[in-house]
Amino acid sequence: MAERVVVIGAVAAGMSAASQALRVAKRNGRDLDMVVIDAGAWTSYSACGLPYWVAGDIADVDALVARTVEEHRHNGLDVRLGTEAVGIDLDRRTVDVVTLDTGDGERLEFDHLVLATGAEPIRPDLPGVNAAGIHGVETIEGGVALLDHLGEGDVHGAVVVGAGYIGLEMAEAMIRRGLDVTVVDRNEQPMTTLDPDLGQLVHEAMEDLGVNVITSTDVTGFDMDREDQVTGVRTADGTLPADLVVLGIGVRPATAPAGVAGVPLGRSGGIVVDDHLRVPGFPGVWAAGDCVESWHRVLGRPAHVALGTHANRQGRILGANLGGDDVTYPGVLGTAISKVCDVEVGRTGLGEHEAAAEGIDHVAVTTESTTRAGYYPGTHPITVKVIAERSSGRLLGAQIVGRADSAKRIDPFAVALWNEMSVADLAMTDLSYAPPFSPALDPVTIAARRTAETLGLL
Amino acid sequence: MAERVVVIGAVAAGMSAASQALRVAKRNGRDLDMVVIDAGAWTSYSACGLPYWVAGDIADVDALVARTVEEHRHNGLDVRLGTEAVGIDLDRRTVDVVTLDTGDGERLEFDHLVLATGAEPIRPDLPGVNAAGIHGVETIEGGVALLDHLGEGDVHGAVVVGAGYIGLEMAEAMIRRGLDVTVVDRNEQPMTTLDPDLGQLVHEAMEDLGVNVITSTDVTGFDMDREDQVTGVRTADGTLPADLVVLGIGVRPATAPAGVAGVPLGRSGGIVVDDHLRVPGFPGVWAAGDCVESWHRVLGRPAHVALGTHANRQGRILGANLGGDDVTYPGVLGTAISKVCDVEVGRTGLGEHEAAAEGIDHVAVTTESTTRAGYYPGTHPITVKVIAERSSGRLLGAQIVGRADSAKRIDPFAVALWNEMSVADLAMTDLSYAPPFSPALDPVTIAARRTAETLGLL
Repeated sequence: MAERVVVIGAVAAGMSAASQALRVAKRNGRDLDMVVIDAGAWTSYSACGLPYWVAGDIADVDALVARTVEEHRHNGLDVRLGTEAVGIDLDRRTVDVVTLDTGDGERLEFDHLVLATGAEPIRPDLPGVNAAGIHGVETIEGGVALLDHLGEGDVHGAVVVGAGYIGLEMAEAMIRRGLDVTVVDRNEQPMTTLDPDLGQLVHEAMEDLGVNVITSTDVTGFDMDREDQVTGVRTADGTLPADLVVLGIGVRPATAPAGVAGVPLGRSGGIVVDDHLRVPGFPGVWAAGDCVESWHRVLGRPAHVALGTHANRQGRILGANLGGDDVTYPGVLGTAISKVCDVEVGRTGLGEHEAAAEGIDHVAVTTESTTRAGYYPGTHPITVKVIAERSSGRLLGAQIVGRADSAKRIDPFAVALWNEMSVADLAMTDLSYAPPFSPALDPVTIAARRTAETLGLL
Repeated sequence: MAERVVVIGAVAAGMSAASQALRVAKRNGRDLDMVVIDAGAWTSYSACGLPYWVAGDIADVDALVARTVEEHRHNGLDVRLGTEAVGIDLDRRTVDVVTLDTGDGERLEFDHLVLATGAEPIRPDLPGVNAAGIHGVETIEGGVALLDHLGEGDVHGAVVVGAGYIGLEMAEAMIRRGLDVTVVDRNEQPMTTLDPDLGQLVHEAMEDLGVNVITSTDVTGFDMDREDQVTGVRTADGTLPADLVVLGIGVRPATAPAGVAGVPLGRSGGIVVDDHLRVPGFPGVWAAGDCVESWHRVLGRPAHVALGTHANRQGRILGANLGGDDVTYPGVLGTAISKVCDVEVGRTGLGEHEAAAEGIDHVAVTTESTTRAGYYPGTHPITVKVIAERSSGRLLGAQIVGRADSAKRIDPFAVALWNEMSVADLAMTDLSYAPPFSPALDPVTIAARRTAETLGLL
C-alpha cells in the first residue's frame, strides 16, 4: 500500500524534496502517495530572483519559475496551491488544510510529513507599518504589489529599511527604476554579515552609486496620508520622505503551525533536524529549507541560514532519504554573495566579530589586490579579508568586497574552509592564472599568504 | 663574510628568488652578495601579458614590467642585463658570462647558484623557419619584432602554428589587429591540455569568431619571397598564404649551459629540484620557474609546467630557503586558464586521456549548465567535464569551456583536488549563490553531483 506523504511548501525545498522522493522511491520499489500544499499561487520559483524582476532585469515573472505546477502534476505530484496548513496533529498524524478562496477545510492523513514552510520577512511592530506602499519582496505576490505601486506613477523617492542582502538588492532595483533611494539601517554599517571595516567599503560604494545610506539609525514608525498611503519613514533623527518603502530587515523561519504542534525549534527559531533532515524524536517528520536550522561546520552548532542553494540541496537530500536512500547532509559554511549594481560582496565562515564571540584567538588580515593583472583592461580593485586561528593558522572565514569578478572568489575559500585548510596551505594551492583573469598570484592566494606571513607561517 | 650568489635569469622566478633571498637573509642576519644576470634587456616582466600587448589591449610595454632594473638595483641587487651565461663550472663554482654588446667576458664565483633560465619556444626544424615574418612571442624583443612587422602595413593574413594557450592568445591578438587568422595544429583538436571533446567546443567557438581552424595537419615548411619574407605555410594538404606567421608550438625548459655543466635534467628536460627548490646532489645549486620540473600532486611525479604563477611562487620559496628559512614547495596540479576573445577555457588535474595513460580506472562526466541563473541577463552556457576515480569517487581533474565567468570556476576544483576530495563531498560543499553569479546550484556543484550520481555515490 502506498505511503501517504504530505509536503507543506511548494517552493525550493518542498518541491525538490517531493520530486526527489518520488524518483528515489520508484527506484527502491516504494510507492509514495504525495500531496504538496502551499498557500501561494506558484511552485518552484526563485525567491532570490525577485529583486531582479522588480528591477526590470527580467521581463516576465514566469522566467523565475523553474517548474510549473502543471509539470509537477505531470510528474505524479498532487500539488494543491492556494491551500494553507492550519493545523498539524503529530499524534493522529494529520494535517488540517484550508482552500483559501473557498474556505473549505480538509483533513489529510500522513505517514510522512515534510515541513518546507520557508522563511517569512520580519515586519517590525511599529506605528504605521501596515500603511499602503510599504512592501516586502519575499514572494511573487509581494513583487506584484510593488510593481503595481510603481505603475501608478508619481513615485519618486524610495526608502529601503535594512541594509542586508535583500536591502542591497532592492536598493539596486529601485535605482534601476529611476527612484531616489535612501537605505536606513540600525547597524553601524551595511551588510552585518561582513565585519564593519568591509561594511564601510560597501557603504562608500553605495554612496558613490548615489544611494543615501543612513546607518546607526532606528526606524521608529511610518507616516501616512489620509488614504493610508505611506509618506515617510520616522527615525530618531527625523523623518525621511518616502513615496514607497521596502522592508528588507531579514527573515525568520516560518514554522507555524508546526511549532504549535510541538515540532522542536532551536535557538534561532528554526526547526531542529538531524543530518538526514529528519526531525529527531518524531519518526516520519522531516523538514528542509529556510524553516530549519542547518549545521554550521565552522561554528560546530546549528544556525539559521536562509538561502536558496541550501533549500535546494536539503530538499533533494530529504527526498532521497524519504525515498529510501541514505544520504547525509554535511552542513553549511555560511557562504553568501550579493551585489548592488557593480559592487560585489562575498563571505564565508566566520567574520572577525563571530570568531571573537566564539572566543577563538584569531588574526584578521585585509589585503588589497586586483581582479586581473594590473596592466590588463578591466582590472578592478578587490579587498579580501581573511580570518584565521592564531595557534594553528586554520582558515576560519573570508570576506570580499570589490567590483566585477570579485564575489565568486569566495568559492575557493569555501572549499578550503570545508577541508579545514590552513592559510599557509591555501597560499600554496595551485589556483589558475592568466592576465585577463587574475594577477600572477590570485587575490585569494595573496590574501592567504599575507595572513600566513602575519602568523609567521610563511 | 658575504656569501656570493649568482642568479641566472631576471624575469619572474629569478627576480622573485633574488628579492626574497635578500629580505629573508637580512632578517636571519646573513649577508648575501647577489648578482643577477640576464641576456635580455628587461627585468620582472609578465611574459604571459605579451599577447595582450601585441593585441593592443595594453598600450605601453612598460606596463608589463612589475619592477624595473633600477628598482631592483635600489633594493640592493646587482642586476646585469644584456649579459649571457656561457659556461658553468660546478666544481670550481664559477659562471662565465659575456656582455653581449661588447663581447667582454668575465668569470663570476659563487657560493650559491640560482638557475632561473626559463623556457624557450620550440622552433621546428623545417625548411624556411628562419624567414622574416615568422615570429615567436615569448619575449618583449619578440613582441617588438612582430609589432614592427605589423607597422610596416600590407599585412592581411596571419597563420598561427599551434593551437595551445599561446596559439589561442595570439589568434585573438591577430583578430584584434584586424587580420584574417588561420590556426593550424597537428592534433585532432585545439588545446590538447583539454580532452578532445572539450577541445572540439573550443574549435567550434573559434570558427564562430571567424578564425579558420585547421587540425590534424602537420606543417612541413614555409614559403618565402626573394627578400626572405614569409609568404605561406606549407602543409600536407597544401599551402596556407601568410603575410605573417606566429609560432605557438609550445616551450621547453631552457637549460643550457646548466645541462652541459652536469645539472641533472628530468624526463621532461626540466632541471630536477627537491621540495626546497635545491638541485639534489649539488649543494648550493638552486633552480625555479619554467626551467625546472615541478612535483605534480595528482600524477605523483615531476612534470614540466611552464607558468608565471609557479615561477613566481617557486622563486619566492627558493629565495626564502636560500635566505635561511625552511619553506616547502608542495607542487602543482596542472591548473591553467586561458581565453580566445570571449571563449574561456580552464583545466586542472588529469584529463581523461591522462587518467587513462596512468591506468586509473575512472569516469568522465560532462555537464552543461549556465554561468548565472537561467533567467538572469548575461547568463551563458558553460560546459564542465569532471574526471573521478571509479573506485573511490576521488576527484582527478576538471575541464571547463564557456563564455564570460567560466574559466575561474576551475579554482574551486583546484582546491578540492589539492585536498583529495571526492566528487560526492565536493557536490555538498557550500559554494556561493546569488542569481547574478550562478544558478541555485553552481555549475561546479552540478558537475560534481552528476559525477557522483554516475558513480552511485549520491
